[in-house]
Amino acid sequence: MLTTGKRQVILGIDPGTATMGWGVVRQEGSRLRYVQHGAITTPSDWEMPRRLDRLFTGVTELLRGYRPSAVAVEELFFNTNVTTAITVGQARGVALLAAYRAGVEVFGYTPLQVKQAITSYGRADKRQVQEMVRALLGLRTIPRPDDAADGLAVAICHAFSHRMSAAAGGG
Amino acid sequence: MLTTGKRQVILGIDPGTATMGWGVVRQEGSRLRYVQHGAITTPSDWEMPRRLDRLFTGVTELLRGYRPSAVAVEELFFNTNVTTAITVGQARGVALLAAYRAGVEVFGYTPLQVKQAITSYGRADKRQVQEMVRALLGLRTIPRPDDAADGLAVAICHAFSHRMSAAAGGG
Repeated sequence: MLTTGKRQVILGIDPGTATMGWGVVRQEGSRLRYVQHGAITTPSDWEMPRRLDRLFTGVTELLRGYRPSAVAVEELFFNTNVTTAITVGQARGVALLAAYRAGVEVFGYTPLQVKQAITSYGRADKRQVQEMVRALLGLRTIPRPDDAADGLAVAICHAFSHRMSAAAGGG
Repeated sequence: MLTTGKRQVILGIDPGTATMGWGVVRQEGSRLRYVQHGAITTPSDWEMPRRLDRLFTGVTELLRGYRPSAVAVEELFFNTNVTTAITVGQARGVALLAAYRAGVEVFGYTPLQVKQAITSYGRADKRQVQEMVRALLGLRTIPRPDDAADGLAVAICHAFSHRMSAAAGGG
């Protein structure tokens, strides 16, 4: 089997202050392999600065452990409410900072882009996206929690986007 | 003149990704003294992770330089739009992280709380608040840029809140 040479590890992140979902996939030419998924959680009775420190430290540890060449972060829906936007923005901010400090490039994808990349259908529901994530990575069950499945989904989205842009570049 | 003993340095921050306004005041008993103000700015053509790193580094340097015992951060209006909320949330996130890592406690105040603390009138306009900041700190001109004046305002707000809570505590 002929594979084009590109190999990369991608860390996908679904940012949140209570739960930061993440997933790691490895792309080897046209193949996509599951590596790991999980969630960094912070107790709701901790003050926000301490919660953000836990998230920053957690993402930094993931970057050190898996050494991804790219971080893919899910963007917010624009129809969310302002309180959610501030909170998620704070979590997103420390995740981007961690990536920058580790020297890893960051790519953002909207929920719509993630859905379209994975299901070729922008109106797929959450369950359909998760089922496709399971199938694409050859997992027996849908990854849990939901935020971790979303982390894997955005990582896959980046792998597909890269493949497309590489193809467009004639590679 | 009798002064109660409390002395503290307060760093006030008005978070934003393009401009992070800041102001430092020193509270000595019932007296309030101006220390410094300024703004950390980031070029709009930098990618967000790099901009957040500049802000994080800048706030960390302010904390090292002025050694405040408290950081007061302005909260967002709830009637702002979601795009602004995400962006400001990101800047706020790295500011809170910098404070946590420096071991300095953080206090949040809404724009309404800041206005009421400084002008005793929640409907004061921006210019009136800035004029009161100038007068309270004995400055000859209104501090510039606006974000730096806002940073001083939230620092003063914290000083007044503290004074009130100290009074309430019978100190």
